[in-house]
Amino acid sequence: MDNNVKRNLSDETAAKLGYQPFKSALIPDSVVERTTHKVSISTGNDKVSSSVEQVIKATVKDGMTISFHHHFREGDFVFNLVMQIIIDLGIKDLTLAPSSLTNVMNDMVVKAIKAGVVTNITSSGMRGSLGDAVSHGALAKPVIFRSHGNRARAIEQGAIKIDVAFLGVPNADRLGNANGMDGKAVFGSLGYALMDAQYADKVVLLTDNIVPYPNTPASIKQTQVDYVVQVDKVGDPEKIGSGATRFTKDPKELKIAATVNQVITHSPYFKDGFSFQTGSGGAALAVTRYLRESMKQNDIRASFALGGITKPMIDLLEEGLVAKIMDVQDFDKGAAASMHNSKNQQEIDASWYADPYNKGAMVDQLDVVILSALEIDTKFNVNVMTGSDGVIRGAIGGHQDAATAKLTIISAPLVRGRIATVVPDVTTIVTPGESIDVLVTEVGIAINPKRQDLLTALKQVPGLPIFTIEELQQRASKIVGQPKPIEYTDRTVALIEYRDGTLIDTIKQVKD
Amino acid sequence: MDNNVKRNLSDETAAKLGYQPFKSALIPDSVVERTTHKVSISTGNDKVSSSVEQVIKATVKDGMTISFHHHFREGDFVFNLVMQIIIDLGIKDLTLAPSSLTNVMNDMVVKAIKAGVVTNITSSGMRGSLGDAVSHGALAKPVIFRSHGNRARAIEQGAIKIDVAFLGVPNADRLGNANGMDGKAVFGSLGYALMDAQYADKVVLLTDNIVPYPNTPASIKQTQVDYVVQVDKVGDPEKIGSGATRFTKDPKELKIAATVNQVITHSPYFKDGFSFQTGSGGAALAVTRYLRESMKQNDIRASFALGGITKPMIDLLEEGLVAKIMDVQDFDKGAAASMHNSKNQQEIDASWYADPYNKGAMVDQLDVVILSALEIDTKFNVNVMTGSDGVIRGAIGGHQDAATAKLTIISAPLVRGRIATVVPDVTTIVTPGESIDVLVTEVGIAINPKRQDLLTALKQVPGLPIFTIEELQQRASKIVGQPKPIEYTDRTVALIEYRDGTLIDTIKQVKD
Repeated sequence: MDNNVKRNLSDETAAKLGYQPFKSALIPDSVVERTTHKVSISTGNDKVSSSVEQVIKATVKDGMTISFHHHFREGDFVFNLVMQIIIDLGIKDLTLAPSSLTNVMNDMVVKAIKAGVVTNITSSGMRGSLGDAVSHGALAKPVIFRSHGNRARAIEQGAIKIDVAFLGVPNADRLGNANGMDGKAVFGSLGYALMDAQYADKVVLLTDNIVPYPNTPASIKQTQVDYVVQVDKVGDPEKIGSGATRFTKDPKELKIAATVNQVITHSPYFKDGFSFQTGSGGAALAVTRYLRESMKQNDIRASFALGGITKPMIDLLEEGLVAKIMDVQDFDKGAAASMHNSKNQQEIDASWYADPYNKGAMVDQLDVVILSALEIDTKFNVNVMTGSDGVIRGAIGGHQDAATAKLTIISAPLVRGRIATVVPDVTTIVTPGESIDVLVTEVGIAINPKRQDLLTALKQVPGLPIFTIEELQQRASKIVGQPKPIEYTDRTVALIEYRDGTLIDTIKQVKD
Repeated sequence: MDNNVKRNLSDETAAKLGYQPFKSALIPDSVVERTTHKVSISTGNDKVSSSVEQVIKATVKDGMTISFHHHFREGDFVFNLVMQIIIDLGIKDLTLAPSSLTNVMNDMVVKAIKAGVVTNITSSGMRGSLGDAVSHGALAKPVIFRSHGNRARAIEQGAIKIDVAFLGVPNADRLGNANGMDGKAVFGSLGYALMDAQYADKVVLLTDNIVPYPNTPASIKQTQVDYVVQVDKVGDPEKIGSGATRFTKDPKELKIAATVNQVITHSPYFKDGFSFQTGSGGAALAVTRYLRESMKQNDIRASFALGGITKPMIDLLEEGLVAKIMDVQDFDKGAAASMHNSKNQQEIDASWYADPYNKGAMVDQLDVVILSALEIDTKFNVNVMTGSDGVIRGAIGGHQDAATAKLTIISAPLVRGRIATVVPDVTTIVTPGESIDVLVTEVGIAINPKRQDLLTALKQVPGLPIFTIEELQQRASKIVGQPKPIEYTDRTVALIEYRDGTLIDTIKQVKD
């Protein structure tokens, strides 16, 4: 079968799993039923343990699905601690269902795969040694990649049934009331982990900071928690922040950011009460800074900013340029710390953020989003998952989810070193071209032909170079030449779900 | 069958409904499964309506279960508005499942019963014309009375399956993000209504105050709401506060309050970090005031105060005498308004408050609670549901739930007018005697014989008159004489569930 982005999905595994092919970014109205979960009745007085091993022995059995969150990012100590004990205990055939896998977890997952401890993975993404191992066929069964919103959907619909969730927190009381805002290893919003806390049959908190009962505000509640395990350290505060928090000085990034701002401010969406999501990284922070100036100049205020939150966005909130911050995760300490101070910075769970199968997600209300791309093709399809060598080294994150915005801008350089970003066909389709409105590169922009309205509006902008996407692709091709085609085996190593659970692409094992 | 409080339950209806007899206040550990609910997928852009009638037509069908909350108490405009339209539309055979029924709703429910619109009711309680009608057999099927915690349990386990919840709120945005803290008709915590918002298949908000999107803090979330209906007024702010907010001057009440305080402060639970629930009404407020003085004198601070919250409890929070307020409902404006100001005043839902079928409820952590009684008998069983004439005129509220505290004090006058409070056998058992530790009256106290430890401790208190409960009962009897036995028919008009869903008593139709 071919799906609507022309990917051949005649894959045995996909067929066996009963996948429907991706059809459209539009989610039709219908009625769905939420899944159930088990509750082990307790008065809550015996939850505290100092032995991770004992709690694992009491909860994890062969064949189960276990989960983790990635809010600690590269500062995470919890994942490796728990997985090492599980490996040592010789538990087998687990499905790993974290909200995502960060680099600090890579080697441990590879080890668990080799030991037969982990035989299934669903994640937002993977990189490094793990992406490499999976791309070369380390797992017998394909990994399932899901966006943050789709993971929420899958949990709420029962497609991901978490038996035991191991959730690291910077504070908890003896019954499990916890938040991400107090303690040493603070990360702010618990957005992704709130799904696990709500739907897992067993919830194990790990913390280095047991505080007096009752702990408030309680993002995770005592009614959701089975065990509270005291450990030495849940994370390294220095490594929790994700990369750049400073304004970029790279002229190419600055050029792109300024152009993104031009596109936004000359679009019909730039008006009082508009909403936006920018994301992290130097270029995104630069966009936020340009946007701030434009909002001030034009006396325009945003109704909300969404997504991974950074300090510069908190500054906009405090300046009154943004009325509300809807916060599913925080990318730096400044954003994490500020959630205490303002009722206008609202912690939201991944379902509220982006599950398409509910009564309205935040992304459905989004006007403008700026997203990245490893590759974008002449159909505007975007790849954020595999390198040009076909190896897995990325994550869907909220890409598919936020691309439902009214104005979805891909911000990317034309080429990266000797590798084209704008290509005839992306290696892996993560987000369908129908969701993408504008590509912004350092040489100019391309507008999706289905958005003639935007083309008309942006043509008026003096000095804004507008190309067709084919022109940009050819320009990239001229710079870097024609790459050698990737050689794959027939074996599928990963399935890419669209946010509604349909199959949008598969990743094959690379030959080497 | 007889249950463990010796009530004969050989009732056909109870048997048909598959009830287990009440056994014990102890909830054994076990594993239960939470129920599912339906979600109608939507982007959320078409939720706003100005026609209650249209929304009712779109959602309510014959035979369904509909629900309301009672946070507006006697100031509620929503219930009568919705029910009148339902009656006018001729919808039949509904089950009414509100968190409770206040007096302002009585006549409308009687009307709906007479019209065949409402044929089943489950509630925390009922009074006035409605209690009278039900006690005289107005409904063919017995009403099921459930405590606030048991209602949460029943909703979470699927025993109450709400098809449509009509929830009045003082503010909401166009997608349904709402709280109880802003607007004209504020009531504070949405605690009871949060269960309906989470588990009903359809959630209809009614508000007189549509605010810009997104509304924060969002106690009810857009992911839970199907319709937002704009109405003129949701409630009368003047009537939302429940009665006395001033310190009583009644010498009998003052005496009882002072004695309650003596019992608390001389119990082993009065130490740093203790917790308590007092409730509303003049006597409860007086207890709070005496307790405040004792805490200051003894340099003792409470870890949390629970339950229906009043301004005097907020004062304790602000003085630092109480570390946290765990807030399932607020009884006055001061308490309602302050939830904005402090992360130490935590809104909790009815499940967290008191569902015994979860991973630890607040009531399970409670040290001291002061509760009221219409009657208490020589087995310490308490009736808060029927008058001495057998007519329904009360509510379980959180009585059974909070009585699980380590020290449960019943505060009640020995007699009320010509009616004894302390009796040989209560008319209706709501809370089993095994949960009750001390009875405090204006003449002295009685201690449950199973609490010899308390007897030993309280004997040391100079000037504290301690009686057996039989002595107090005889004393009451001497004052008011022997009442005529109530005459009942064989027909059951109501079932009293214990908080775990077992049957603790039934109420028969009164003869007149």
